[in-house]
Amino acid sequence: MTLDATEDLTHDDFLGGKIAIWQPRRGYRAGVDPVLLAASVPAKAGQSVLELGCGVGTASLCLAARVPDLQVTGVEMQQAYAILAKRNAQENTLPLTVVIADLCALPAPVRQERFDHVIMNPPYFDRSEGTASDDIGKDVAFAGETPLRTWLDIGARRVGPRGYLTLIQRMERLPEVLDALAGRLGAVIVRPIAGRAGRAPELFLLQARQEGKTPFRMAPTLVMHSGETHIGDQESYTPEVTRVLRSGADLHIWH
Amino acid sequence: MTLDATEDLTHDDFLGGKIAIWQPRRGYRAGVDPVLLAASVPAKAGQSVLELGCGVGTASLCLAARVPDLQVTGVEMQQAYAILAKRNAQENTLPLTVVIADLCALPAPVRQERFDHVIMNPPYFDRSEGTASDDIGKDVAFAGETPLRTWLDIGARRVGPRGYLTLIQRMERLPEVLDALAGRLGAVIVRPIAGRAGRAPELFLLQARQEGKTPFRMAPTLVMHSGETHIGDQESYTPEVTRVLRSGADLHIWH
Repeated sequence: MTLDATEDLTHDDFLGGKIAIWQPRRGYRAGVDPVLLAASVPAKAGQSVLELGCGVGTASLCLAARVPDLQVTGVEMQQAYAILAKRNAQENTLPLTVVIADLCALPAPVRQERFDHVIMNPPYFDRSEGTASDDIGKDVAFAGETPLRTWLDIGARRVGPRGYLTLIQRMERLPEVLDALAGRLGAVIVRPIAGRAGRAPELFLLQARQEGKTPFRMAPTLVMHSGETHIGDQESYTPEVTRVLRSGADLHIWH
Repeated sequence: MTLDATEDLTHDDFLGGKIAIWQPRRGYRAGVDPVLLAASVPAKAGQSVLELGCGVGTASLCLAARVPDLQVTGVEMQQAYAILAKRNAQENTLPLTVVIADLCALPAPVRQERFDHVIMNPPYFDRSEGTASDDIGKDVAFAGETPLRTWLDIGARRVGPRGYLTLIQRMERLPEVLDALAGRLGAVIVRPIAGRAGRAPELFLLQARQEGKTPFRMAPTLVMHSGETHIGDQESYTPEVTRVLRSGADLHIWH
């Protein structure tokens, strides 16, 4: 994938215009998921953050826009996305260092550091399950070559003392995620995400902590939309989600 | 524990009076949990059911009262509870066969059969964690000697082709339960149970199926009580829960 021409890109506002992100017009495009992920990270000013698979940098930049003075490192193996992530960091004047690397072959400076926060929005589908898309970039972002367990293994290892891992994933992969983290990180909290109240949650946010001792907890479901069904083209986000998406508020995984 | 004298017992209505259950005045007393468990079992007339740790028979008898012509076997290792379970089956004229046995030493007829449904409400706490109660019967029911993983291993093995395992358990043990069932039963559905809307769910119902291929799903949370807080001594169950507890309706784990 090459993304040289500006006509291949869109320039989209996030957090009510606090940041603007260049991303491919076709291919993997950031939706609300990286924004929810970023909002859920309990980072404090001055801390270090590692994002595995940062794409064009949406989650990392949303987080850096909310919490001042972070040191954010984003790893992205697809060069075209990584280049956009660098450009997005620069144009938004936010502290994101982009590393072009496969997460299975992290360069020494990343491999030798442990971070206060590791965040990730790993592909939702296994390549073996799905049909390949005709866009390679989109395909890798939706259904990567790297197994989910490897993402979690590598992520867990990079979390520093008392540090947090925060991720967003499809609900059907919850058992796999819990299993991969068992015995490595503790104080696991899952916050299911449902489209509407009373619907089955299809995604979840998960947070776990290095040396965490608290037993597993499930938080109340985050409901994305108000009402029973979608009405025309009206925006229908619930107040909690609106505060995150439009005002850059943080999102409590636990209340 | 001996429970010879009637003054040691209470005689309580369940399912709006469809059945009445003798149980110890002190010690482990059935609440709503076994009733929710029974309501969630997708049994059809004529099928076979095994309950591990049936206590005084509450879940098995609620199920037998809802679905006609079941062949229900309840295993209980505490003799005093098992005797009450037999009496409760007889007085309610419901088809429950009670077997007094440790579930790690099931008698051959049970060990050689596979059932359409296996149900269980295993102890919520590990003996190693909690303080022993001064009532041995209560203690074993709340925090048994048998590890939860053993309950699940033994239960999973007794589920027949296309049969179901249904259980209720504390939320903090969800990772353990999912791990114990992984690779053994499929089509796992978890329905979280919360005291009130917007509160963290503290219990869950789980259903899994022999040979089930459907990926893991989470159902919408079952909310027990209406309103924000408890008002005086008013009963505040939600309509869905009221139908189960007072009219013996079934409860859909998946919608």
